[in-house]
Amino acid sequence: MAIAEQIPREKQDRAARQAHLKQRLAETRELSTRLAGPLSDEDQTPQSMEDASPTKWHLAHTTWFFEELVLKAHAAGYREYDPRFAYCFNSYYETLGERHPRPRRGMLTRPTCAEVRAYRAYVDDAIMRMFEVDELSDEALDLIELGINHEQQHQELLLTDILSLFAVQPLRPAYRAETETTQGETPPLEWLSFDGGIFEVGHKGDSFAYDNEGPRHEQLIRPFKLAHRPVTNGEWLEFMADGGYETATLWLSDGWATVNAEGWCAPCYWEKRDGVWHQMGLGGLVPVDPARPVCHISYYEAQAFALWAGKRLPTEFEWEIASRDLPEQGNTIGAGLLRPAPTRAPDGTLQQMFGDVWEWTSSAYSAYPGFSTAPGAVGEYNGKFMCGQYVLRGGSLATPDGHVRRTYRNFFYPHQRWQFMGLRLASDA
Amino acid sequence: MAIAEQIPREKQDRAARQAHLKQRLAETRELSTRLAGPLSDEDQTPQSMEDASPTKWHLAHTTWFFEELVLKAHAAGYREYDPRFAYCFNSYYETLGERHPRPRRGMLTRPTCAEVRAYRAYVDDAIMRMFEVDELSDEALDLIELGINHEQQHQELLLTDILSLFAVQPLRPAYRAETETTQGETPPLEWLSFDGGIFEVGHKGDSFAYDNEGPRHEQLIRPFKLAHRPVTNGEWLEFMADGGYETATLWLSDGWATVNAEGWCAPCYWEKRDGVWHQMGLGGLVPVDPARPVCHISYYEAQAFALWAGKRLPTEFEWEIASRDLPEQGNTIGAGLLRPAPTRAPDGTLQQMFGDVWEWTSSAYSAYPGFSTAPGAVGEYNGKFMCGQYVLRGGSLATPDGHVRRTYRNFFYPHQRWQFMGLRLASDA
Amino acid sequence: MAIAEQIPREKQDRAARQAHLKQRLAETRELSTRLAGPLSDEDQTPQSMEDASPTKWHLAHTTWFFEELVLKAHAAGYREYDPRFAYCFNSYYETLGERHPRPRRGMLTRPTCAEVRAYRAYVDDAIMRMFEVDELSDEALDLIELGINHEQQHQELLLTDILSLFAVQPLRPAYRAETETTQGETPPLEWLSFDGGIFEVGHKGDSFAYDNEGPRHEQLIRPFKLAHRPVTNGEWLEFMADGGYETATLWLSDGWATVNAEGWCAPCYWEKRDGVWHQMGLGGLVPVDPARPVCHISYYEAQAFALWAGKRLPTEFEWEIASRDLPEQGNTIGAGLLRPAPTRAPDGTLQQMFGDVWEWTSSAYSAYPGFSTAPGAVGEYNGKFMCGQYVLRGGSLATPDGHVRRTYRNFFYPHQRWQFMGLRLASDA
Amino acid sequence: MAIAEQIPREKQDRAARQAHLKQRLAETRELSTRLAGPLSDEDQTPQSMEDASPTKWHLAHTTWFFEELVLKAHAAGYREYDPRFAYCFNSYYETLGERHPRPRRGMLTRPTCAEVRAYRAYVDDAIMRMFEVDELSDEALDLIELGINHEQQHQELLLTDILSLFAVQPLRPAYRAETETTQGETPPLEWLSFDGGIFEVGHKGDSFAYDNEGPRHEQLIRPFKLAHRPVTNGEWLEFMADGGYETATLWLSDGWATVNAEGWCAPCYWEKRDGVWHQMGLGGLVPVDPARPVCHISYYEAQAFALWAGKRLPTEFEWEIASRDLPEQGNTIGAGLLRPAPTRAPDGTLQQMFGDVWEWTSSAYSAYPGFSTAPGAVGEYNGKFMCGQYVLRGGSLATPDGHVRRTYRNFFYPHQRWQFMGLRLASDA
Repeated sequence: MAIAEQIPREKQDRAARQAHLKQRLAETRELSTRLAGPLSDEDQTPQSMEDASPTKWHLAHTTWFFEELVLKAHAAGYREYDPRFAYCFNSYYETLGERHPRPRRGMLTRPTCAEVRAYRAYVDDAIMRMFEVDELSDEALDLIELGINHEQQHQELLLTDILSLFAVQPLRPAYRAETETTQGETPPLEWLSFDGGIFEVGHKGDSFAYDNEGPRHEQLIRPFKLAHRPVTNGEWLEFMADGGYETATLWLSDGWATVNAEGWCAPCYWEKRDGVWHQMGLGGLVPVDPARPVCHISYYEAQAFALWAGKRLPTEFEWEIASRDLPEQGNTIGAGLLRPAPTRAPDGTLQQMFGDVWEWTSSAYSAYPGFSTAPGAVGEYNGKFMCGQYVLRGGSLATPDGHVRRTYRNFFYPHQRWQFMGLRLASDA
Repeated sequence: MAIAEQIPREKQDRAARQAHLKQRLAETRELSTRLAGPLSDEDQTPQSMEDASPTKWHLAHTTWFFEELVLKAHAAGYREYDPRFAYCFNSYYETLGERHPRPRRGMLTRPTCAEVRAYRAYVDDAIMRMFEVDELSDEALDLIELGINHEQQHQELLLTDILSLFAVQPLRPAYRAETETTQGETPPLEWLSFDGGIFEVGHKGDSFAYDNEGPRHEQLIRPFKLAHRPVTNGEWLEFMADGGYETATLWLSDGWATVNAEGWCAPCYWEKRDGVWHQMGLGGLVPVDPARPVCHISYYEAQAFALWAGKRLPTEFEWEIASRDLPEQGNTIGAGLLRPAPTRAPDGTLQQMFGDVWEWTSSAYSAYPGFSTAPGAVGEYNGKFMCGQYVLRGGSLATPDGHVRRTYRNFFYPHQRWQFMGLRLASDA
Repeated sequence: MAIAEQIPREKQDRAARQAHLKQRLAETRELSTRLAGPLSDEDQTPQSMEDASPTKWHLAHTTWFFEELVLKAHAAGYREYDPRFAYCFNSYYETLGERHPRPRRGMLTRPTCAEVRAYRAYVDDAIMRMFEVDELSDEALDLIELGINHEQQHQELLLTDILSLFAVQPLRPAYRAETETTQGETPPLEWLSFDGGIFEVGHKGDSFAYDNEGPRHEQLIRPFKLAHRPVTNGEWLEFMADGGYETATLWLSDGWATVNAEGWCAPCYWEKRDGVWHQMGLGGLVPVDPARPVCHISYYEAQAFALWAGKRLPTEFEWEIASRDLPEQGNTIGAGLLRPAPTRAPDGTLQQMFGDVWEWTSSAYSAYPGFSTAPGAVGEYNGKFMCGQYVLRGGSLATPDGHVRRTYRNFFYPHQRWQFMGLRLASDA
Repeated sequence: MAIAEQIPREKQDRAARQAHLKQRLAETRELSTRLAGPLSDEDQTPQSMEDASPTKWHLAHTTWFFEELVLKAHAAGYREYDPRFAYCFNSYYETLGERHPRPRRGMLTRPTCAEVRAYRAYVDDAIMRMFEVDELSDEALDLIELGINHEQQHQELLLTDILSLFAVQPLRPAYRAETETTQGETPPLEWLSFDGGIFEVGHKGDSFAYDNEGPRHEQLIRPFKLAHRPVTNGEWLEFMADGGYETATLWLSDGWATVNAEGWCAPCYWEKRDGVWHQMGLGGLVPVDPARPVCHISYYEAQAFALWAGKRLPTEFEWEIASRDLPEQGNTIGAGLLRPAPTRAPDGTLQQMFGDVWEWTSSAYSAYPGFSTAPGAVGEYNGKFMCGQYVLRGGSLATPDGHVRRTYRNFFYPHQRWQFMGLRLASDA
C-alpha cells in the first residue's frame, strides 16, 4: 500500500514485533494454565525438595515477574494486585527485596490456587491493555519478551518438579496416563566426523537470546566425532551390569562420594519391581525401554559412563558447531511425549539433538569473553550462577516449542538429576 | 420394665456401652470433619515440620486406625478400602508393617482430600454396620473406644499442626477470625496449700484410660503449694524484660544450648510488629494479651521461668492430687476459644486446671510401677515413648471435650513448643 | 594427751580434716599423673568425639579447677599461672567466663603436655603451701574436697576417653597390655528379694557428697527382686543371636531410631574378627569373654535387653536400698582391671554392686525434693544437667577407689556408651 | 673423557638423571624433616578440619607413597616396614585398597611421631640402596621423580595445615617468630598489555610435569591486560570499607550463600584486636600490612573483589602466556617468608608472578583436549578431581623451590581459603 510505504521501516518492524509478542504472550500464558490442568489444587502445593518448586508457585512467580518488571515500570497507573505477593513469589532477586525462603515454598497454602489464578488473570489483563497503546517502548517489549522466555523455563520446571513430587509418593501417580508401552532395542551407533578450525560461537543477530549466550566470539575447535544419537537405556543397563556403579576408578572423586552417600545404583526414578527395572515418569511407573535415551542422570554418571565406554562428553562448543545446520526442532513439549522417544537407526545425520533429553557437555558453565551483567534485577538472571555448574544443550521433551536454540546454554550442578537429562558420546577425531 | 429386668445386669451394661460408643463414635468422626471445615484442600496437604502432620493425613490416619484394628479383625467379610493406604497412613506401628516416612507426609497429594473423605465415609459406614449386630465383643468395643480416643488426640494435633503451618506463611492466615481483642492485666496470685501423705494415683475403675495411666499405685507426697492460675503473658514479659533469655544460669544445660542454637527470645509464635509483641494463633496475628496464660513454651523455658520466679514446677502427682476434687472440665474445644481465656482473680480455688493450656510438670515421662505393654500394635501406643519426654497435665483449648482426665498423661520432648503448652508454679510448703 | 585435751573438739576435728585432705589431695593429684604415664604426649592430645576430652585437657582442667575456685579465692597473694589458661581449660562454667569450644579441645597442641605438667606442679605447690597455714577455713576445705572429687571424676573420664580414642585407631593400641585371657561361662542367676516400705534415701551426714545426692528424703518402695550379678557377655550374645538388635518391639522409639541410624548390632567396641566377637578395651582387642559383665551398652540397649529377658531395670532407689548393708567397695581403679571381672556363682548376696560396671537404672536423672543449687560456679556442677539423662549407680573398674558411694548418682544420656556401663536385672516381687 | 665418550648418549643421560634424582630425593626428604622441626610431637598430631592433615600424617604418607609405588614394585627383595601402615597412610587411592577415613587422620596417635621418623629412615635407606644399582629403569626413575614432586606438594600442605591448626588455638602460636613488622602502603597499579593470537599452552618437553599440564595444545587468546602486581591488603580493606561483604550483587550466588552461612566479613585468619585488623600467619598474630598481597581468600571473594573493582580474573591461559618470558622464580619456600612480601612500584614488568601467593584464575579446572589418565594408582593423581574446582597459578611462599612451573595447575574448591591464595586483576584489552 502506498500509505503503508510511508510508514518508516523501523516503525513497521516495531509494530510487527509488538503484534508478534502479544500473540506469543497470550499463547505462553495459556500454556502454563494448560500444563497445570491435570493437577489438583493439592498437587500444586507441596515441593518435593529444595530444588523443586510447587506448581502454584511457578504460576504465581512467572506472573509476579511480569508485574514487577513490566507493569510496575511500564504500565501507567498500574495498581499492584497485592503488595504482599512480592515477598511470596520473588525467587532469588536480591535487588528486588526480601523473599520467602526457598525451602518453604511448599508451605504456601495461601494464597490459594484460586487466588493465584485470579492474580494471573489480573496481570494478563493489565499487560494485554498495555498492547492497546500504539507503540510500546523497546525496553517494555524487551522485558515482555524476557518474561515470555522466563515463563517458558518455568513451564519445563513445572513438569520436572511435579514428576519429582509424584515420584516420592507411594501411589506413584501419573501426570497423564501413558498408553504406549513399546519395548525396543538399542540401534547400532554411527559416528559423525566434524572438522576443526576457528568457529564463531554464541548468539548472533537481533532475535532474543539470554545474556549468557553472548558475546558471540571465536573458538578454536579440534576435529571431533559425535554419536548420531544419545546413549540409550539399553546401553545404561550394560554399564550397570558391568559394575559401573561399583567401580571407583570410573568416577570423579566428588561423583564417587555422591554415589556412596546417596546409594545410587541406577538413574534417578528407576526402581526394580519383581526383578524388572521400572522408571517413574510423567506417565507413571513403566518398565524401562532399552531403545529410548537414558534420562535423569547426573553429570557424574554421564562422565563415568563415557569413561567406561572409552569415549568422552562433547564440549558445549563442539555441540554447537555440530548442530550448525540442523533445524532447531525436535521432540519438545508440543510433541506430547511423556518419555524421550525411542532412538533410531543411523542415517548419516545427527538425530534427536533438539528435544527429548538435555545433553550434558563437559563444559563448566562460565562467562563468555567480554560478558558482563546488566544493571538491576535482570542482571541477576544468569551471571551469578556461573560457578560449579555444567552446561547442557539441546532442550528436552519438557521444553516449550521454540524456546531452545543451538546457542542455548542450560546449566545444572553435577549431582542434579531431576531434569530430563541424558548424554551423547563424543571422541577426538 | 419387667422384661428388661430379666436381662442380666452384665448384658444390660454391655448394650448400654455399645449404644453409648456408637453415639460417641459418630460425634467424634463428625467433629474431625468439622474441624477440617475452614481449611481448603491445599491447607490440608503440607506439613510445616517433621513433628507436624497434614490435616488430610490426620483424617486418613484415624480412619486407617479403625480399619486396621477394628474392621479387619472384627467386621466379618470386611473388604479393605485400598490395600495401599496402610503404607500411606500407618504412623509408627512397627508391628503393622512398613510405612511412608514421617518427614514426607506433606508430599502426599494423592490420595486427594476428596478421596480421603470417601475413605472416611466407607469406613464409617462399615463400623456403623458393625453396630447393627446385637452384641459386639468386649474386645471390639475396647478397640472402638481406643479408636475414638485416638481420633480425639489427632483432633488436637490437627489444630496445633495447622497453626504451625499457618505461622510459617507470609500471609499469617487465620484458622478462624478472632473477634475478641480485649487486653487485660495479670491478676494477683494466690497460693493454695496441700497436705502431704501417701496417696493413690493413676487411673481407677472400668472407664476408659490409656495404659500409661496405670497401674494405680501409691505415691508419697510432701506438703506443697500450687498457684491458683497459670503463669500469664504479662509475667512472661517481665521475665523477658529481666533478661530471662540471656541469663545462662537460669537454664538447664540443654535448654541453654537450644536457646542459642534456635535464637529463642520469646515464646513460639511471638513476633514483634512495630515494637509491639504479637502472637500468631488460630485467630491470626494479634497483640499479646498480658492477662492470658502464656502458651507455646518449651519445658526448658518453663523451668527457666520457674527458677527465675524462685519457684518450681509441680510434679505430675502433685498436680493429680491437687485436682482430686475438681470437675474434669474447662475451656476445651467446645468452648470455641482461639487463645487461652484470660486468667481471673483468686477465689480460693484452683482455676483453669483443665483446658486452656497443658501444664508442664517436672516429671519425666516414665512407666508406673508394674506397667507393661499389651502385645501387638496396641502395645506400641504409649510405652515406647517413655524416654526423654516430660509429662503435661490438664488439657488445652484444643483438647476435645471429655477427653482429658485428672490422671491423663500427655508427654512431649523438652524442646517442643507447638502444642498449647503453658505452666503453673508450685513450691514446697 | 593433756594438752590435746585442751584443744576444743571442733578444732581438733578441723585439724584432722585438714591433714586428711592434704593427704588425699596429694594422692589424687599423683594418681592423675600416674594414669597419664603410659600415654605419649601425642596420645594425650586429640579427642575422639565431642563427648570425650584429651588426656592433656583433663590434666589441665582439673588443675584450673583448683586454681580458679581454691587458689584465687583462698590463697593470699596467689599469682595466676597464665591468665590465658582459664579460656583454654574452663569446661562448662558459664559464671566463670568464655571458654574454648568443647568440640575443639583436641586441637589444643599448646600449651604442650610439658607446659601442662609445669602448670600442675605450680598449682600443687601453691595449694600445698596453703596447708602450711594453721587453719584453713571451712569454705576452703570444702572447695578442696570438691576439687579432689572433681579430679577423681576426670580420672575415670581420662580412661574412658583414651579408650574411645584408641578404639578409632587402625592399630587398636592397648593402654596397658592385657595378660589374662581366660574365657569362662555365665554362672546361673540367683534372685534376691527385698521388702517394700518407706525408706530414707539420699546422702546423710557430714561426709562429702555431691549436691545431687540430697536432700535426704523418704521414698515409698514396693517389694522387688534383684539379680545377684550383672548381665554377662554370654547372655548378651544370646540376645544378639535371638535377633535383639533387629526386633523393633523390644526397643524404645528413640532407641530403635538410634539402632538404625548408627547401625548398632552389638555393644560399643565390639567387632568381629575371623567370625569371633572381639572387644576393644584398655588391654587392646581381645575375644569377648562370656563370663564377664557386658559393658559399653546404652540405656536403650539395657532397656531392650531387660524387656527381652522379661524383666526390668531397677529404679535408682531400689538399687540404693538393696545396697544398704554392703561395703562400698569393689573392683574400682585400685584393682587394676582392664575389663570387668568375671561374674561368680550365687552365694546369697549381691555381687559386684560396687565397681566393675556402672549399672543403668530406670530412673530419669532429676532433682530430689527440696533440691536447690548453690549460688555461683559450684551451682553449675550438677543441677543444670537434670534433663534427658538417666541415673547409673555403683561405679566401675575405672572409678577411683573411695570415690563412689551407695547414694552416688552418675548420669548419662540414653544413647551414650563409651563409659564402663552395664546392667543388672530387677523385677517386681 | 675418552671412556666417557664411548658411553652412548642415552646411557649418559640416564646416569645423569639418576644422579640428579638421587640428590633431589635426599634434599626433598631432608626438607620435610626440617619443616617439621619447629613442631612438637603434639603439634604434629591433630587436624584442624577435614581438609587439613596432621604433620605426622604428611611425613608418613609421602613415605608410604615411595614404599607403595617405588619400593614394592622396583626394589628387589624389599620388605614392607609394617603391613598395617598402608591402611593408615593411603590418602585417596582407590586402587591401593581401603584406608583410614580422612576426617579421622587427627586421631592417629599411633604410630607415634618417633615411629614415623623410623619409618622414614627405613624407607629412605631402602631407596638410597636402590640407587646403588647401576641403572634404574625409566619407570622407577619416573616414579621417584613423581614421589619427589608429590612430597613437595605435601610440604606446602604441611605449612598451610599447621597454620590452620594454630589459628584455631586460643594461644595463636607461631610456627616461627616473625621479626619483621614493617607496615607499608599499596603502590600504584600498572597495567601491562598482551597481544591475542593462537598460542600453545601446556607442558612441553621431557622434563617433569603432572599429567594435568598436558597435552600441550593451541588456545585462542584475545588481547588482554594484566596488573603488574597482586591485589594488596590495602585494597582489600577498601573493598571491605565499601561494603564488599554486604553487597549481594557483587557475589556469585553460591558465594553469597557461603558469606552468609559462614559469616565471612574479611579474609580467612583475619581478626580485629582493639579495633585493628590482625592476620594470623606462620609468624603468629600480626597487624595486617596494607602493602602486602592479600592472602587466604576464596574464589568467591576474588570474583566479588574483581567485580567491585570493575575488572576480572585472568584465565589460566592468559596467566600462562603472560608469564612466558619470566624466570620461574620468586618468593618460594627458600625465601623463608612467613607472609607474602610487600608489593613494589611498577617497573614495566609483571612482579611476583611466581611465589608469594597462588593466584586464582577464572578457569574451571578441567581436562585439556586429549587428556587421559594413566592406568593404576598414578592415574588417580589429578584427573578425578576435575570437577567443581578452579585453577590457581604461580606458587606461593610455601611452595618448595623449583616445584612450580608456568604450566603448573593448582586447583581448589571455590570456598576454600586456607592455602596461600590471592589474586591478580585482569581486563580485556
